[in-house]
Amino acid sequence: MPRKNIPTMDTFLTDGRSMLLAYDQGFEHGPSLDFNNKNVDPAYIMEIAAKGGFNGIVFQKGLAEKYYDGRVPLIIKVNGKSSLVKGEPDSKQNCSVEYAVSLGAKGIGYTIYLGSQFEGNMFQEFGKIQQEAHEHGIPAIAWIYPRGQAVANDTSREIVSYAARVGLELGADAVKIKYTGDPESFSWAVKSAGHARVFMSGGPKTKTDEDFVSQVRGVIQAGATGLAVGRNVWQNENPLQIADALKKVIFKEKAIEPSIGV
Amino acid sequence: MPRKNIPTMDTFLTDGRSMLLAYDQGFEHGPSLDFNNKNVDPAYIMEIAAKGGFNGIVFQKGLAEKYYDGRVPLIIKVNGKSSLVKGEPDSKQNCSVEYAVSLGAKGIGYTIYLGSQFEGNMFQEFGKIQQEAHEHGIPAIAWIYPRGQAVANDTSREIVSYAARVGLELGADAVKIKYTGDPESFSWAVKSAGHARVFMSGGPKTKTDEDFVSQVRGVIQAGATGLAVGRNVWQNENPLQIADALKKVIFKEKAIEPSIGV
Amino acid sequence: MPRKNIPTMDTFLTDGRSMLLAYDQGFEHGPSLDFNNKNVDPAYIMEIAAKGGFNGIVFQKGLAEKYYDGRVPLIIKVNGKSSLVKGEPDSKQNCSVEYAVSLGAKGIGYTIYLGSQFEGNMFQEFGKIQQEAHEHGIPAIAWIYPRGQAVANDTSREIVSYAARVGLELGADAVKIKYTGDPESFSWAVKSAGHARVFMSGGPKTKTDEDFVSQVRGVIQAGATGLAVGRNVWQNENPLQIADALKKVIFKEKAIEPSIGV
Amino acid sequence: MPRKNIPTMDTFLTDGRSMLLAYDQGFEHGPSLDFNNKNVDPAYIMEIAAKGGFNGIVFQKGLAEKYYDGRVPLIIKVNGKSSLVKGEPDSKQNCSVEYAVSLGAKGIGYTIYLGSQFEGNMFQEFGKIQQEAHEHGIPAIAWIYPRGQAVANDTSREIVSYAARVGLELGADAVKIKYTGDPESFSWAVKSAGHARVFMSGGPKTKTDEDFVSQVRGVIQAGATGLAVGRNVWQNENPLQIADALKKVIFKEKAIEPSIGV
Amino acid sequence: MPRKNIPTMDTFLTDGRSMLLAYDQGFEHGPSLDFNNKNVDPAYIMEIAAKGGFNGIVFQKGLAEKYYDGRVPLIIKVNGKSSLVKGEPDSKQNCSVEYAVSLGAKGIGYTIYLGSQFEGNMFQEFGKIQQEAHEHGIPAIAWIYPRGQAVANDTSREIVSYAARVGLELGADAVKIKYTGDPESFSWAVKSAGHARVFMSGGPKTKTDEDFVSQVRGVIQAGATGLAVGRNVWQNENPLQIADALKKVIFKEKAIEPSIGV
Repeated sequence: MPRKNIPTMDTFLTDGRSMLLAYDQGFEHGPSLDFNNKNVDPAYIMEIAAKGGFNGIVFQKGLAEKYYDGRVPLIIKVNGKSSLVKGEPDSKQNCSVEYAVSLGAKGIGYTIYLGSQFEGNMFQEFGKIQQEAHEHGIPAIAWIYPRGQAVANDTSREIVSYAARVGLELGADAVKIKYTGDPESFSWAVKSAGHARVFMSGGPKTKTDEDFVSQVRGVIQAGATGLAVGRNVWQNENPLQIADALKKVIFKEKAIEPSIGV
Repeated sequence: MPRKNIPTMDTFLTDGRSMLLAYDQGFEHGPSLDFNNKNVDPAYIMEIAAKGGFNGIVFQKGLAEKYYDGRVPLIIKVNGKSSLVKGEPDSKQNCSVEYAVSLGAKGIGYTIYLGSQFEGNMFQEFGKIQQEAHEHGIPAIAWIYPRGQAVANDTSREIVSYAARVGLELGADAVKIKYTGDPESFSWAVKSAGHARVFMSGGPKTKTDEDFVSQVRGVIQAGATGLAVGRNVWQNENPLQIADALKKVIFKEKAIEPSIGV
Repeated sequence: MPRKNIPTMDTFLTDGRSMLLAYDQGFEHGPSLDFNNKNVDPAYIMEIAAKGGFNGIVFQKGLAEKYYDGRVPLIIKVNGKSSLVKGEPDSKQNCSVEYAVSLGAKGIGYTIYLGSQFEGNMFQEFGKIQQEAHEHGIPAIAWIYPRGQAVANDTSREIVSYAARVGLELGADAVKIKYTGDPESFSWAVKSAGHARVFMSGGPKTKTDEDFVSQVRGVIQAGATGLAVGRNVWQNENPLQIADALKKVIFKEKAIEPSIGV
Repeated sequence: MPRKNIPTMDTFLTDGRSMLLAYDQGFEHGPSLDFNNKNVDPAYIMEIAAKGGFNGIVFQKGLAEKYYDGRVPLIIKVNGKSSLVKGEPDSKQNCSVEYAVSLGAKGIGYTIYLGSQFEGNMFQEFGKIQQEAHEHGIPAIAWIYPRGQAVANDTSREIVSYAARVGLELGADAVKIKYTGDPESFSWAVKSAGHARVFMSGGPKTKTDEDFVSQVRGVIQAGATGLAVGRNVWQNENPLQIADALKKVIFKEKAIEPSIGV
Repeated sequence: MPRKNIPTMDTFLTDGRSMLLAYDQGFEHGPSLDFNNKNVDPAYIMEIAAKGGFNGIVFQKGLAEKYYDGRVPLIIKVNGKSSLVKGEPDSKQNCSVEYAVSLGAKGIGYTIYLGSQFEGNMFQEFGKIQQEAHEHGIPAIAWIYPRGQAVANDTSREIVSYAARVGLELGADAVKIKYTGDPESFSWAVKSAGHARVFMSGGPKTKTDEDFVSQVRGVIQAGATGLAVGRNVWQNENPLQIADALKKVIFKEKAIEPSIGV
């Protein structure tokens, strides 16, 4: 008899769609390239999340401890690496699920570098984290980034859908993946993810807001749940304005669901 | 005094024979090469397993959580790797036995790459998994694939029987191995496996259904228990039809048992 | 709801500022280059800490066990390496948090070599230590030194602020980092550290006392909490005199706080 | 005060001598080179052990679970490796002591490749196994094979006695080592093993039975406890006949004990 | 408040001085080069320790189990390596502190190869062992040998004092280090060791007894606690005679204590 009561992403959804605010740039890339006097401050990000109507905020443990104030549901990213070390990427757990929960986390985030020589370490670590998250009744969310010598193009239909699928197979309740560039190819990734919800990874700031909104539109049309966005919001001069524009797309746009038959 | 009540494969047998439906292609090879709009969906596979009269279905943890509905006995494969990374293969545990059991698993699957530089890691990990499975009263099933620089030909009589034997020695209750190509040589693998039951690993889709059925006939004649099949069923346009053809062979064909004397 | 009662650095502060006496030179560099007949003796250092009005003393476990007398709050550094081995630096935990607490520690220190090939090991180990420290109600202090092939200049604005930020992200309650050389650039590191308190790492003995006091003035002007000093105090012929000079700067100098707006 | 009640090899002795039947060939070398239709079957080996009056039988966990019937005392070998992988040998634990005991084991076997780059892993693992075996009141038996680039000749007096001694130092209750080729040099190995009992490792099938019996005679004359034999018995057309010949030597031959004085 | 009741070396001292009998030669170097018919026997060593009035005997776990008779206090060396493997040295724990205590150990010995690429592993392992020893109320003794590519001269004043200091910092209650060759330079090592007691490591057999006694005299003059001697005693034709000569020096010679002032 199959198990009941598998945790869902419901905490982070509005009518089945979602917009998350991600902020691990300071760990992953350092505070100099992407930050300015305002957005270097996690309190500013917390403010945007609350006022911008985001469905969740993503912090590393340290920011969660010192800045999280409970106004939007919290996801704690429990691994990370600096951008300094080159070579095959690995990213190790720095926060236990139990501790994340004690800080108020309603979801656990973890990055897997699919295709890295060390992918096995991350599969294994995520496996434990996923179980612990589910035992605490909260979802596990996999950031899945194909990377390393074995990966030629990390936004191809093939590799992005592989990323999505590995997340599903490993028990992720949601996957955060890069956009392939068009709704049709991305819809294959969404289909490959099955019951795991798909979030587009925001990526670097686009030239114009319209560019970004347009990407998000494609993502939603492809059947994805939504967006985990960072720089394109908190580097924006009007973060609440771009958030509003994104919400219009995420929560109003219709998906063009692909047909599946047995 | 020897221990009693060692778990058996009985849950997965019909009159001592068995046909299992395997579906870890999405993890091991990605959803693009082998999947189409229908078979990318785990619900479709679950449907085939139930309607096709399979003795068991093999899922990774994520699929078990989100798609397994209890209609056929469940085996959870608790390790896996992507096809992206090259070099000596390793495959690490991503699901605990305890968690697999909580999801309804009646058997635990694990891949060992015999001959890989990392075989020792897998022997050790399987050793723990086997004990835990038996402590939960369910069988441990070893996928044993000779692979790596040390393996010249992974379907020779010598190497396939070595794979079978390592499974027996490590306490596997069943081994999933490749077919050697003819019943005579495969019967040595079956004999080497002793009381561990032998399942042929289905492999890539054959040109014709007859080719595949013929292979399975050889396997059964060699004394094996049956087949763990994936692509040759769920890539088939008529999965239930090929399943019927396989069942006729698996459950009706007679083994030509080799004689053993003391 | 966010967690309450996160430990703070209050034990080690006077009006929000702090001067710590560090003494792990014997482990990290050996007793010959930097020590003389007097300062080779940990009892001498304990004496300076007490008489010099330091806010805390930093010992490795062995010194804490055999020399610590309770007159100033204790920080135990729980990892370390010798200066003999070259190549990418790693530094492993040699004292449990639980044991450090049993020896009277009111804070736990740990070195992270940011940018080292092994940074992930240290992120992970610090992650556990931070949790354990907080569970014992005491702060975790990260010595963060960018080092290894990937690090060209370990005192640049970019790298020092990255160090500060990684400490914040990992949950350090204070970071000990190198001075960038001027208050303006260092203020960016202080800002990047957010609610994690910033201590300047003392470094090698300067030519004159004035040189060192001047550095510390810049640090305080940049908004840092204070200084963790070793050689510049205990190699000084008049350790109490230089301590007095430092206290004047640390506890009287005003910070030129940068403005942050949402 | 020294500890009492250290486990002994008594379970496996007849008047202080012993003949063990070893059967891990299928794991270590595969079923093809050394096995035939009869001896590939563990039940055949179990039969020989019982009818041949052996003092013990050595199985891997899988064989113990599925074939052991309690007629002779059981030793479970808890590590192993295939013969496929080349380079410095390592052999990892695949069965816990606790589980081995639950299967009826009265002794625990473990292989150490002395001189391998990985010897430290095996020393450490054996250290834990030895403690656990003793806590269960049963002896730990070390197969000690000098191997790897550092070992020029694995049957020299020096290296065989080193193997014997390492077993004693690590707490082995018995060591299984190769024969040096003559009783005089082997007696130094026996002396080096001290209170750890010495078993000759049977090795590959000799040309004639007389050759093998003659080796065993030398071993016993050198003061060893006996023999752990595999291929020379179960590859023999008349296993019970060669067993009888061996028993005559093992249990009747006198040792020429070397004199030791303080 | 600092912790009370840190274990001391008192069990192994007579009026603050000590002479220990060390015997791990069989593990570290094999029984052939240094052993003869008499001293290969651990019972002979036990006898010398008792009759020679030694303050302690150092055995590996296996010898402790099978030969220790309680007449002199026992130190169990809980790690070791063979002399066969070349390259950067590592030495792993093969006996738990808990088990050593159950065998009667009143002190725990552990070797650290300072300067080895693997020194961090040993720092970490010793850190756990030291805590466990102290929790059992017994001292931890570090054999600290600078070794590996990074070490040019392992008896220089600088490196020997570094070894002594690392022991102190890691919480060793006593360090066993090599003699520098003269009392003056060795007194710096003794001073660097602080409250950790210093034992000279006996080393290979000297040409004459006088040579060895003269070394020990220098060690004691330098302020050390004593000597851990092996080969120079048990390879001696008259072990009790040389023991007597050593005792005269160790327990009667005056140290020329260096002055320390604050």
